[in-house]
Amino acid sequence: MPVYKAPVDDTLFILNDVLGFERYNNLAGFSEASSDIVEAVLQEGGKFAEEVLFPLNQVGDREGCERLADGQVKTPTGFKQAFEQYREGGWLGLAADPEYGGQGLPYALHTAVGEFMSSANMALMMYPGLTQGAIAAIQVHGSDEQKQAYLPKMIDGTWTGTMNLTEPHCGTDLGLLRTKAVPNGDGSYKISGQKIFISAGDHDMAENIVHLVLARIEGAPEGTKGISLFIVPKFKLDGGGAPGEKNGVSCGSIEEKMGIHGNATCVMNYDEAEGYLVGTENRGLNAMFVMMNEARLAVGLQGHAIAEVAYQNAANYARERIQGRALSGAKAPEKKADPIIVHPDVRRTLMTIRAFNEAGRALLLWTALKSDIAHRSDDEKEKQAADDVLGLMTPIIKGVLTDKGFDHAVAAQQMYGGHGYIEEWGMSQFVRDARIAMIYEGANGIQALDLVGRKLGLNGGRAVMAFFKEVEDFCAENRENEKLSFFTKHLKKGLGDLQASTMWFMQNAMAKPDNAGAGSTDYMHLFGLVALGYMWAQMAKAASEKLAAGANGQSTYLENKLITAKFYMEKVMPETALRRARIETGADSMMELAAEAF
Amino acid sequence: MPVYKAPVDDTLFILNDVLGFERYNNLAGFSEASSDIVEAVLQEGGKFAEEVLFPLNQVGDREGCERLADGQVKTPTGFKQAFEQYREGGWLGLAADPEYGGQGLPYALHTAVGEFMSSANMALMMYPGLTQGAIAAIQVHGSDEQKQAYLPKMIDGTWTGTMNLTEPHCGTDLGLLRTKAVPNGDGSYKISGQKIFISAGDHDMAENIVHLVLARIEGAPEGTKGISLFIVPKFKLDGGGAPGEKNGVSCGSIEEKMGIHGNATCVMNYDEAEGYLVGTENRGLNAMFVMMNEARLAVGLQGHAIAEVAYQNAANYARERIQGRALSGAKAPEKKADPIIVHPDVRRTLMTIRAFNEAGRALLLWTALKSDIAHRSDDEKEKQAADDVLGLMTPIIKGVLTDKGFDHAVAAQQMYGGHGYIEEWGMSQFVRDARIAMIYEGANGIQALDLVGRKLGLNGGRAVMAFFKEVEDFCAENRENEKLSFFTKHLKKGLGDLQASTMWFMQNAMAKPDNAGAGSTDYMHLFGLVALGYMWAQMAKAASEKLAAGANGQSTYLENKLITAKFYMEKVMPETALRRARIETGADSMMELAAEAF
Repeated sequence: MPVYKAPVDDTLFILNDVLGFERYNNLAGFSEASSDIVEAVLQEGGKFAEEVLFPLNQVGDREGCERLADGQVKTPTGFKQAFEQYREGGWLGLAADPEYGGQGLPYALHTAVGEFMSSANMALMMYPGLTQGAIAAIQVHGSDEQKQAYLPKMIDGTWTGTMNLTEPHCGTDLGLLRTKAVPNGDGSYKISGQKIFISAGDHDMAENIVHLVLARIEGAPEGTKGISLFIVPKFKLDGGGAPGEKNGVSCGSIEEKMGIHGNATCVMNYDEAEGYLVGTENRGLNAMFVMMNEARLAVGLQGHAIAEVAYQNAANYARERIQGRALSGAKAPEKKADPIIVHPDVRRTLMTIRAFNEAGRALLLWTALKSDIAHRSDDEKEKQAADDVLGLMTPIIKGVLTDKGFDHAVAAQQMYGGHGYIEEWGMSQFVRDARIAMIYEGANGIQALDLVGRKLGLNGGRAVMAFFKEVEDFCAENRENEKLSFFTKHLKKGLGDLQASTMWFMQNAMAKPDNAGAGSTDYMHLFGLVALGYMWAQMAKAASEKLAAGANGQSTYLENKLITAKFYMEKVMPETALRRARIETGADSMMELAAEAF
Repeated sequence: MPVYKAPVDDTLFILNDVLGFERYNNLAGFSEASSDIVEAVLQEGGKFAEEVLFPLNQVGDREGCERLADGQVKTPTGFKQAFEQYREGGWLGLAADPEYGGQGLPYALHTAVGEFMSSANMALMMYPGLTQGAIAAIQVHGSDEQKQAYLPKMIDGTWTGTMNLTEPHCGTDLGLLRTKAVPNGDGSYKISGQKIFISAGDHDMAENIVHLVLARIEGAPEGTKGISLFIVPKFKLDGGGAPGEKNGVSCGSIEEKMGIHGNATCVMNYDEAEGYLVGTENRGLNAMFVMMNEARLAVGLQGHAIAEVAYQNAANYARERIQGRALSGAKAPEKKADPIIVHPDVRRTLMTIRAFNEAGRALLLWTALKSDIAHRSDDEKEKQAADDVLGLMTPIIKGVLTDKGFDHAVAAQQMYGGHGYIEEWGMSQFVRDARIAMIYEGANGIQALDLVGRKLGLNGGRAVMAFFKEVEDFCAENRENEKLSFFTKHLKKGLGDLQASTMWFMQNAMAKPDNAGAGSTDYMHLFGLVALGYMWAQMAKAASEKLAAGANGQSTYLENKLITAKFYMEKVMPETALRRARIETGADSMMELAAEAF
């Protein structure tokens, strides 16, 4: 019953008109991504999302995954076939290294298509999603032999990958992990221990599963400095590199979760499984962070993607459901009641979601483009600047877009009244699925700490200062433009709150680190509000320029952009002052109670 | 695995020290509620909630209700026995009219106990909860004969009740309803039609079910002016008043919902069922509103109650889960990591929930006491003033406490990291259960409209002006008190935002009603922030006076009250400015898009 339509036009507007995608022809893979190709890829990806992935979304939720008596894991009806089509379409390797069979197209394009597919079926897309993270880790830290052995099969989707970090007693604090690695003497290791919450941990859709596993080599130091990363394939590779003998790894059980039922979240038991060290001994966390950063952006994308599909359904419902009359007089007098979209409170809800979604999409694509620059540019300075943005935006995208994605799935569900609570209508699934994105790959509180405790001060605050300057410059350049002054005025005000809060941390968190922790979540959201506001200001600029140049039949679309930008600035941006007020009152009132008083 | 402990002490502090419960001895039923009795009732009710209701909460979620092949509905294991104990304990009639077998104790006490029981098992408590609403409607609008026939059995819990309003095509807009009533000529009617979302619609826990059904008498006007209310018992009463022949009403199916699985949400089919008019023809909405107002307060209570139990579990988990080290240095150096409650961001979450819960409890009990005064006082002026508060606070309690209750269940779930997403831990159930409270008995957008469109202007704004004056007077009286000036300063600021927003509506919503609709949800939350802030100021006053008078071993408890009050004022109250800013930018940016552009 739910519907989904890939927002291809809005994506094209962002890529072409806001980000000026064609300007990046100098980067590897971008010259192949001409505007025709980009549009064709988006159309194809959108069609696949709408027609193949989306119809399986409720099926996956209802059926879930099953661990059979023989320990094998069965995915929901149709998942295997859909993944087969996904594989054949070459979607997994869209932006992957051509040396290993990838198409080498821009990561920004991969991100755009990824939104469509995650909107359509988040649980299914997690199978290739986790594979992406595993590919990234092997690509950066694996040996040439490992790359040759694993990457081509993973990039073409014949094999999938997983990330095995969490254990029952340790999630955030990986220093506590106990999984053991004992050298076999031949360069390989025996891996033993239990991992939990392993997404896509086992399934029936690929010939082999390449587990990337954090473990402690016998005798290694305690804490995070004694952790190494291993490849543990489900089936060991035979002499010809094909999956052969079963390895000592198995799915012990599948977790019963609130949502993403279509993805098998496994307890994985390692019983002297053969594993191969990735990178250097005891430097596993470094390698892990390559996966993690990739995954954090992907999770932020999920939050955004669910808010998009939830919004589309809420908007449709609001147009169709008739109930009551408009406050300003009947709008559909020929009917017994008006569609509920006439009510300002319904529109407030829809506009709020829309304002975040369109800016969220821009922020994701802007950041993905920075990733392309960071990885593909020849200009060291440009690379560094892009990498700074990428690092800075990763916790913001993960934390803010998933918090908002969930809130907005809930708000969209609310539009349905009682029907929203009934599983059949599909809105409950969006809420239940979106919930996990706030938790995994580092709960959002950890993202906030990463931002305040790490990213803010990195290289003397280089990344954050560059961002402030970029936004300030934008405001200064467009201040006199009467079509943009409304937007720059509000953006400037938000930026001012962000800068003041940053200053407050510098003055108050050195001596008392709790002041940073106390304000970290507010700061992350404050930063998000400004970053999204900056996206809106850029979109408003692009829209008004395009309108002035003759809109080519897009004038309604572009005018709606300007209205939505106005809504964001008026209704959303004022939240920066609240966040700042909370930050500046510090930690005292939250640290005073004794633990047992809670 | 989840835990629950009824907050008896906090309830006693509110009743005795903040509200001065003993001052109301002049009201019927209050002299029987001496402080010993109140404490004993709370202890007993708390024990019943902890020991009988709570252990069945996860059972109810997992098993759900089942419609058997013969059309009968089976409730989860243990529900029937627990309800039997509830009935035997006389809990249903605690505050009910002694003329029909109730105990006539204060409604405020009933509310206090109701919190404990809804925290422990919301789905189970809905069976007696809906019965309360049906009792209220019959009590106010039923004939003497109807009261004699139904009330004693409902008040002692032998029979339960339901509210049948919604139909597939109409929820909020009851004017559209189609269920038909045809006179039989003997004073009874034949009721035919389909009702959906009927909570506790059918079950196996009571001898009879008394359905209160909205229907349109043949030939009645269209719209809301042609709706009447009927009693339709599941079993018609025989000559002796006992359940006899089966009536033409049955459960067609049970909805598959996101939560409250333990409650049977039924599609009810009426096929020429025998029904009896309650009150006057075509005045059914009036009678319905008696149920509805009762139910709205009860739903606000549910939102609060779930936030309380979710908070308790999150606090426990945060004390026990060890992960990482405090920013300010190890707090449990003997362990491998510190409990996560050392982290400011965890405390921020817990303090936020706590600050709302303690004030929410006070607001519920303060309002319930107003209900007692409104219904039991002999002083007309006092009655009217209390009734004004009751009417004003009903949409605020329903809308704000359920929005916050859900948000806070989510925040509590977040403390668990990945474990929060696994059903076994119980946090997902709190979130899923809390979600419905934002929807049923009038979705929260409707509550906001009720507040802005109806309650605000009623009797020339008498209720709202009286509330403003009461808060202003409190601030003025305590401004010079150095122990309270911090609180009154923040409260005054919040009140100022609320007054300014009210003024803005007066100036801008008359000519353009959309401006009222656009700001309604923000206004409801703004009002809630101030009302809860007023509760905090009163609690701070009571706590500091009690501390000054010698705290009787409660000094830690009372000092924690003052710290939590400070937290609320510093971290929560500033949100009033944001709400005001949104209200004062009006409807324009949300009304401009064409419906098809969404």
